[in-house]
Amino acid sequence: MVDSRFHAEAGPITLGEIAEMTGAELRGADDPTRLFRDVGTLEGGGPDDVAFLENRRYVEGFRASKAGACLVAADLADQAPDGMALLVTARPRRNYARLARLFHPAPPAPAGVHPAAVVDPSASLGDGVSVAPGAVIGAGAVIGDGARIDANAAIDDAVEIGAGTRIGAGATVSHALVGARCYIYPGARIGQPGFGFEMDADGPFLVPQLGRVIIEDDVEVGANTTIDRGSNADTVIGRGSMIDNLVQIGHNVVLGRGCIIVSQVGISGSTRLGDRVVMAGQSGVAGHLEIGSDVQVAARSGVTRNLPGGAAYGGAPAIPVREWRRQIAAWKKLGQGKSSPGSTNEG
Amino acid sequence: MVDSRFHAEAGPITLGEIAEMTGAELRGADDPTRLFRDVGTLEGGGPDDVAFLENRRYVEGFRASKAGACLVAADLADQAPDGMALLVTARPRRNYARLARLFHPAPPAPAGVHPAAVVDPSASLGDGVSVAPGAVIGAGAVIGDGARIDANAAIDDAVEIGAGTRIGAGATVSHALVGARCYIYPGARIGQPGFGFEMDADGPFLVPQLGRVIIEDDVEVGANTTIDRGSNADTVIGRGSMIDNLVQIGHNVVLGRGCIIVSQVGISGSTRLGDRVVMAGQSGVAGHLEIGSDVQVAARSGVTRNLPGGAAYGGAPAIPVREWRRQIAAWKKLGQGKSSPGSTNEG
Amino acid sequence: MVDSRFHAEAGPITLGEIAEMTGAELRGADDPTRLFRDVGTLEGGGPDDVAFLENRRYVEGFRASKAGACLVAADLADQAPDGMALLVTARPRRNYARLARLFHPAPPAPAGVHPAAVVDPSASLGDGVSVAPGAVIGAGAVIGDGARIDANAAIDDAVEIGAGTRIGAGATVSHALVGARCYIYPGARIGQPGFGFEMDADGPFLVPQLGRVIIEDDVEVGANTTIDRGSNADTVIGRGSMIDNLVQIGHNVVLGRGCIIVSQVGISGSTRLGDRVVMAGQSGVAGHLEIGSDVQVAARSGVTRNLPGGAAYGGAPAIPVREWRRQIAAWKKLGQGKSSPGSTNEG
Repeated sequence: MVDSRFHAEAGPITLGEIAEMTGAELRGADDPTRLFRDVGTLEGGGPDDVAFLENRRYVEGFRASKAGACLVAADLADQAPDGMALLVTARPRRNYARLARLFHPAPPAPAGVHPAAVVDPSASLGDGVSVAPGAVIGAGAVIGDGARIDANAAIDDAVEIGAGTRIGAGATVSHALVGARCYIYPGARIGQPGFGFEMDADGPFLVPQLGRVIIEDDVEVGANTTIDRGSNADTVIGRGSMIDNLVQIGHNVVLGRGCIIVSQVGISGSTRLGDRVVMAGQSGVAGHLEIGSDVQVAARSGVTRNLPGGAAYGGAPAIPVREWRRQIAAWKKLGQGKSSPGSTNEG
Repeated sequence: MVDSRFHAEAGPITLGEIAEMTGAELRGADDPTRLFRDVGTLEGGGPDDVAFLENRRYVEGFRASKAGACLVAADLADQAPDGMALLVTARPRRNYARLARLFHPAPPAPAGVHPAAVVDPSASLGDGVSVAPGAVIGAGAVIGDGARIDANAAIDDAVEIGAGTRIGAGATVSHALVGARCYIYPGARIGQPGFGFEMDADGPFLVPQLGRVIIEDDVEVGANTTIDRGSNADTVIGRGSMIDNLVQIGHNVVLGRGCIIVSQVGISGSTRLGDRVVMAGQSGVAGHLEIGSDVQVAARSGVTRNLPGGAAYGGAPAIPVREWRRQIAAWKKLGQGKSSPGSTNEG
Repeated sequence: MVDSRFHAEAGPITLGEIAEMTGAELRGADDPTRLFRDVGTLEGGGPDDVAFLENRRYVEGFRASKAGACLVAADLADQAPDGMALLVTARPRRNYARLARLFHPAPPAPAGVHPAAVVDPSASLGDGVSVAPGAVIGAGAVIGDGARIDANAAIDDAVEIGAGTRIGAGATVSHALVGARCYIYPGARIGQPGFGFEMDADGPFLVPQLGRVIIEDDVEVGANTTIDRGSNADTVIGRGSMIDNLVQIGHNVVLGRGCIIVSQVGISGSTRLGDRVVMAGQSGVAGHLEIGSDVQVAARSGVTRNLPGGAAYGGAPAIPVREWRRQIAAWKKLGQGKSSPGSTNEG
């Protein structure tokens, strides 16, 4: 199923090794030397594949599965078909993802600096850094151990890239400190000046953008996403946050830890998000707002006010999700030519 | 009108050649050796220009036109002004577009690999391939005959590019098989990992993205558009589909043939579109949905459910277009402080 | 506060020089040789910093400020704390921005053409042009005095770049004439073909895109923004317009002077905007429309009709802002299960 031209194949791996690597318990009398070649789905997997079952909804597929082994939660294990090797674990999906990476390890980056890269002599490169053809690294930049700079990426002067971080092809980074184990996807733009002008009676005028972008560890920044540097403070992306493609993050925005920002979201300047905020696709937030931790914003919503944490919101302007659902139901009636919820009381 | 610094000029062309190249019928006693220099509009064209008339709405402009010749539908030809040469055809607009290309042929790409390009020795290049300065082609990549790789584009290892396909400046392609006669516009991002994480009680975790992107023949992918590779299956763009700028296409999405996806649309992961689906600008579709063939989605709509084929939808959440129009009319009354359609029954 | 690795420091500067450079009047008996090191806020600034006060709302902070000097409007100057040097001016904010640039001048671009850039021998470069590594400049291109082409940018054949204009890293420009003192941010795409196809009974067909992009002087184009070239006319961006990140501008669009187009806006083909039009974030305009001068479009609005100038609009479809606000208030009641404004008359 996996195309080996694009994804390495490290199998076969023995059942015993799989159990050890995932911390799963080998149930029953299965032979720990039995070999497996790949991960697979409950439906599509064969005798050489390892599947997983975490959600009780899929237990029918589990019973009928031809997969040779399965990572499975303890309370579902007794539904297994005959002959299936059982790897019992509290986190089947998570261990399946880990197993997929074991069968298909990310290819190592070519070691060293390609002769067609341009690295300023004053830049500092850690051990095992990989710099691809056409990449440009500016004066005084600091690239951490094991970092990888892909083809035609440009790292501007004095930028710091943490250990193990990957900068995708064609991406550009300036005025930024990037943490460890981050992945900046192809074409992302980090650190350019924000949309920084103000207006007075004489018209608009540009304001120097004197801040930076701080990206903490373990952050992903999607393809062609743009993160502007701060104007007087910094733009900050908190640890473990995941940002999808084509997202706009304005100057001075602060994201807490573990935020999830889905594709085509826009976050306007100086807005602050708490931890674990989820913004679904194509939603937007106005500037200078405070969004509390654990807020969830529905797709295509437009946030125009501060949002207290720990709650879900939807619509444009965004309102608590329960009110928003009622609003949509009322609209639906308007579209069908029926009375609004208010007027039906009299009808 | 056309700036010859940017667009080649191949004229003059004789009326007889024009008739032959377009398959149009030369009506009347016009001299087939008469020379024409360019295409032009009914209003702006002069005696050396060829205009077109397809839509009866513009017949007044046709009667008053000074254009020397006109591609025209048979049933409108008798309205022509004196002295205009008539090229009668069932497809005036289409033949006008073809004629514009004849007068202004796309410039040939420089032949061969520029010395400032970097092509891995194990890559395979077909006949007449053009590789511009700064382009990078990875190990094992296969580039078809007559393909063109523009400045600073990056083609990753093992990628296949079909014959006659053009990869625009600064675009990046990985984990992908691209068909023939495609045009990937500047800055498009093809094949990066999808937004691939899942959540369990311990928080989010990354899932390896082990699929590919398959782009069939005759596809256009707009500037700075992003198409993520599949996670376990492939992301597929069907033959002849046209995708505008800044579009997001998530992992495992399947587009049928001849789809038209306008700028800033977002299609979430694992959603499948049939053939000839039209999504207007800034609309979005949630994940894991089925959109039937010949569906039309209005601009800025948000699709949250499966949509049966052959119908038009609008709004967010998207509903049948007739209901949506009624909804908008009812909103308008709300904005004007008038009764809603339901309440007027009692008023 | 400012990180000197990324932003140059030109201070200290004497109070007298500051007064002279900004045209502000030195009030009181302050010593014009007193030295200042930086700009700062009213709250954060210390004795070596210059702050500003323009808006009466912040007068409390002004009274309590520890900043050594302050640019201040004449009518607020008498509220100053003891010991603060006063720079009285009609435009405190504007002069503060100018002062910030004096303390932190933009670093000069490296002079000349880097050996890892590729400049076609037929291109013409003005005095003091800077071309960074990996930049590609095509045949017949004309680059004005003092222009700066950043790393891995690509300027296609015959393109003209005005004096003092900067083309950001990884940006691409083709079929375009760009004015003076513009800044095209990283990853912007200028001049690719528009989404140019038409439909007839035989299906879609491509139409050659034979126009250009004309960018007048003093324009800013945001990161990863896309501006398509005209099809038969030109796409024009008027003088002094500011375009944010991830904006889409279709073929044949004309923007007047001083327009402000915020992030993720889409302007469809052949639409014309007057002067000083403001389109807030994530809004969109359909094609072939006329938007009058001084129109303001609210965030996330969708414009579907011509808009008369000098007014504000909101919503999708966009309506006059007063009606839109009433519409939102009525929706809110629908969401709360209350009567619509109309039906309450009977309730």
